[in-house]
Amino acid sequence: MTTRKVAAAKKSAAPAKPVKVAILGFGTVGSSVAKVLAASKFPGIELTHIYNRSIDRKRTSVAAKFVPKAAVWTEDINVILNARVDVVIELMGGLNPAEGWLRKALGSGKSVITANKQLIAYRGASLAKLAAANGVHLVYGAAVAGGVPVIPGLVQGLGGDHATRISGLINGTCNYILTRMETGADYATVLGDAQSLGYAESDPSADVDGYDARAKLCILSRIALHAELDPDAVATQSIADVDAIDFAYAKELSCTIRQVSSAQLEGAIVHARVAPMLVPLSSPMAWSHGTQNMVIVSGRFGGDVVFSGHGAGGEPTAVAVVSDLLAVSQGSHAVHLPVRKRAVTGEFMASHYLRFIVDDKPGIVSAISGALAKVGANIDSLLQRPGYPKHRLPFVVTTEPCLTSTITKALASIGKMDCMLEHPLCLQMLDPEEKV
Amino acid sequence: MTTRKVAAAKKSAAPAKPVKVAILGFGTVGSSVAKVLAASKFPGIELTHIYNRSIDRKRTSVAAKFVPKAAVWTEDINVILNARVDVVIELMGGLNPAEGWLRKALGSGKSVITANKQLIAYRGASLAKLAAANGVHLVYGAAVAGGVPVIPGLVQGLGGDHATRISGLINGTCNYILTRMETGADYATVLGDAQSLGYAESDPSADVDGYDARAKLCILSRIALHAELDPDAVATQSIADVDAIDFAYAKELSCTIRQVSSAQLEGAIVHARVAPMLVPLSSPMAWSHGTQNMVIVSGRFGGDVVFSGHGAGGEPTAVAVVSDLLAVSQGSHAVHLPVRKRAVTGEFMASHYLRFIVDDKPGIVSAISGALAKVGANIDSLLQRPGYPKHRLPFVVTTEPCLTSTITKALASIGKMDCMLEHPLCLQMLDPEEKV
Repeated sequence: MTTRKVAAAKKSAAPAKPVKVAILGFGTVGSSVAKVLAASKFPGIELTHIYNRSIDRKRTSVAAKFVPKAAVWTEDINVILNARVDVVIELMGGLNPAEGWLRKALGSGKSVITANKQLIAYRGASLAKLAAANGVHLVYGAAVAGGVPVIPGLVQGLGGDHATRISGLINGTCNYILTRMETGADYATVLGDAQSLGYAESDPSADVDGYDARAKLCILSRIALHAELDPDAVATQSIADVDAIDFAYAKELSCTIRQVSSAQLEGAIVHARVAPMLVPLSSPMAWSHGTQNMVIVSGRFGGDVVFSGHGAGGEPTAVAVVSDLLAVSQGSHAVHLPVRKRAVTGEFMASHYLRFIVDDKPGIVSAISGALAKVGANIDSLLQRPGYPKHRLPFVVTTEPCLTSTITKALASIGKMDCMLEHPLCLQMLDPEEKV
Repeated sequence: MTTRKVAAAKKSAAPAKPVKVAILGFGTVGSSVAKVLAASKFPGIELTHIYNRSIDRKRTSVAAKFVPKAAVWTEDINVILNARVDVVIELMGGLNPAEGWLRKALGSGKSVITANKQLIAYRGASLAKLAAANGVHLVYGAAVAGGVPVIPGLVQGLGGDHATRISGLINGTCNYILTRMETGADYATVLGDAQSLGYAESDPSADVDGYDARAKLCILSRIALHAELDPDAVATQSIADVDAIDFAYAKELSCTIRQVSSAQLEGAIVHARVAPMLVPLSSPMAWSHGTQNMVIVSGRFGGDVVFSGHGAGGEPTAVAVVSDLLAVSQGSHAVHLPVRKRAVTGEFMASHYLRFIVDDKPGIVSAISGALAKVGANIDSLLQRPGYPKHRLPFVVTTEPCLTSTITKALASIGKMDCMLEHPLCLQMLDPEEKV
């Protein structure tokens, strides 16, 4: 009997020697991790080090009361790298200096827990190899959807399926903005609110332009589709061009608008995209609100599985970090399945929503439909709401399913027409039959 | 440094010696497990034994083509218990003979994977001890919500939170029946359809009377609330008494009706109940359809997390079993947190929906409201739909929040009134503010 291989570890809930933990970055999430640890008093876990810049300010903050008296506060990463620390929790974000520091930590036999989606999207495979070579853990359950256990659920609970698609709402800031716009608010106002609530950065580009969601999509693709993607190769489209009028037209089409991230495995190619899309009102994605996250995995055998909850925020993210810490401290390693590098395309076969703002003159509809016909795209509907001035008239065309590149080609010529006051907005429409 | 303790296992994706697997029960789920394994060809996993009664019939079934040629088919459990099998997958259901056989398997150093909710609800704690004592795994991700990874998600991804409540739709048959009734079908017809579709047994009691959901609720309570409950102590109410008219009244109250399982930790007591309840249309539970399962975990730090998908069916359940098998074969043990025995009460502070069928006479409303006033329950609304005969008149009273036992006391006296043609139906109403 291969007892050794399938043997469960003997009870390890309360290890004899505590696992020593360092937190890098004592901001919203870092201080919440300290708070959750203080509230839970898990046996065998000891917070021993805090790294941050301007450490004196942090040490005297309200959140500092959750940190054990004996813990070392430092501005010098080497203090932690050279200490007898077992687990490093990295909550600084960004590639640099996080990558170099974590490589040193892994190299010196420290396990790493991180919420750093950019780092894991770009360097996850290489860091995982380094962790394996050093016999330590690298876990990042908090990197996607914060407190919603999408990553543990996928890794431990859906490894037996063949996932063919993963999609969802994985940027809470965009979801907050778009669900507020759905009820009539305009983009600039809502973005301002998001910034003052701390949901959006002063430079909101990473969120609204899709780079944050793209990194998360690549992580999910690795875990669910076992496909390693180059994040830079994944197409993105900003939500900044979506206007209040688009929500009105979407409603007429029994849809709303969400920033959807989607990756679909077909043969050896992954079709991947982060973009504002028209979502049927019958989809669970349409029911999301505020900063909610939602991930839908479609499996060959298990069908669609939906995870949702509060992705953003210090405490939900801290839950993911502390859950990872429990797993690491108990030596509970993740299920490991082989991952392959996959080529990415932004091409989807889908219906498209095209919104034009024109200086209305006779023949415009004919010109537009001519340009669409020329590339082989069929019009499904033409919508024009009353009450807009002729010289700045918004109207909408939806197409039957066709390739993204086909529409792009048509829009290149349509966009050059004299009557066009803005470059047309093109949104992919999710298929109401697909339920996701 | 305590390297040993937090060290990750070295790469174990393709163990040198394959893990030998036996399936007990080659029905819908068992044959789907063989199918998923055949499709996936995970390295290091070998299906070597199938146990079933009337094995000759199984061996020649269509599903048998997914079983490797070299596998042993047997009607004698001892063949498997005495074989060099590493993992036993139990898919027979029921306490006997499953419990005795699995105790022998664990005792002889075999890991056990099971989808048997009754066994795990009643004997899970004791079987887990036996597994730990023998240094083997006992995992049961398939016991609740089939292909929806609620158990792995909770165990590996939410251990860091303090869950205070778990609730949801965890019986696909009841959800199928009630969502069909919502659109006008009557109970008997839909039950018949569910039986012919294989969703319900010829004796549907385990599903419709709540015993199946109760077992699952106890398992979820153990994992999420770390509270061990006596399943027999959990209150249940059948969905069989819910009538088409109740859906009409529920709609007037901006609600629908679902079989809800709910367990809430308050101090050292767990409030637990499986019953048809009025669910606000704004709740994700109201959006469920067909055999869908949905579990909502409410945590102190992470807020509400929702898992949903297809709980029932052979292939979704097989996904959970095979995912567990991957974890066991890679020696990936679950996070372990201490569990306590907790007392159970069926008391909830809630609004209640009371539906009466009366032979209408003057003074009935006054008598009913008098009986409610006597126990201190305040009426919130009184609804009477037109178009029913006076001599068999349905009407509805809803109350302000009060204890379950208060309403039960009032109904005991109201039920004895001469005008009552049926015992009143009482359904708990979920609070629309609570979002779950």
